[in-house]
Amino acid sequence: MSSRFSKTIALGLLSGSLAVPAVAQTPPGDQSAVQASQAIAARKAVYTLIGNSFSPLGGVLQGKTQFDAADALKRAERVALLASYSQEVYPEVSKTGNTKAKPEIWEDRAAFDKRLQEFVDHSNALVAQLRKDKNNADAFKAAATTVANDCKGCHDQFRAK
Amino acid sequence: MSSRFSKTIALGLLSGSLAVPAVAQTPPGDQSAVQASQAIAARKAVYTLIGNSFSPLGGVLQGKTQFDAADALKRAERVALLASYSQEVYPEVSKTGNTKAKPEIWEDRAAFDKRLQEFVDHSNALVAQLRKDKNNADAFKAAATTVANDCKGCHDQFRAK
Repeated sequence: MSSRFSKTIALGLLSGSLAVPAVAQTPPGDQSAVQASQAIAARKAVYTLIGNSFSPLGGVLQGKTQFDAADALKRAERVALLASYSQEVYPEVSKTGNTKAKPEIWEDRAAFDKRLQEFVDHSNALVAQLRKDKNNADAFKAAATTVANDCKGCHDQFRAK
Repeated sequence: MSSRFSKTIALGLLSGSLAVPAVAQTPPGDQSAVQASQAIAARKAVYTLIGNSFSPLGGVLQGKTQFDAADALKRAERVALLASYSQEVYPEVSKTGNTKAKPEIWEDRAAFDKRLQEFVDHSNALVAQLRKDKNNADAFKAAATTVANDCKGCHDQFRAK
């Protein structure tokens, strides 16, 4: 890699061309606050996109929208990738801040991690089902319902109203 | 699917268990405002996660972080999926609102779409490179630099300071 490219990237990253707060440049005392707000921002972004991606699938489950296998697969792949992303956005430091995440997440971490893992597994199962037998609307609905119930179950237990 | 499951999902979706504003329930006059704010929220979420996902790859390009092939692949897969997601978050209705997206995006849509497609293609090429020859750090750096330059080029042209 030429140093010209390297410099371009460095400048791009440092000048905020990418939306990444520069933790390393923050005084040590403020680092945990930055890390917390960064994790909370990532968390909200992950769930905004999970919600938007699942919404059309929920529409099919509710009978509002026609089942479209190709579209369902695209949305399900997004949900699955974002589900695995969600496992990284609950560091201990982000327990407090502007968040609806309940303290129980960190107090009963094993129970919370189990829920997230179920969400990941069921999202992957939904993708696998759509790849295996894409025109089977009933099998899609069963697999997508399991995912929807994971969302609801975890929100009921670990998200403040 | 039993009607019990169906009802659970419907209630879950409508009560905001999933973070999806209910466009269909909004009076017609306000729908475009809701659609705009929804698209802008999705846009910000997409770029927050692209930034967070690319950041460790940028660290490798800047020589701050050691190259880790497995971690790089995971991040690159996220960037690639989110790049394709980004192509859906610029509806005409979202031209105005709380956004740094310049009006040029919609005034010169073909140029903007070309840039986004390059970002998608180069992100996919980065993933393909890491899958094909994962321990080749130089090839990774070349492919990741191309993606970083896509970010910077599009921001310079289409994002307000």
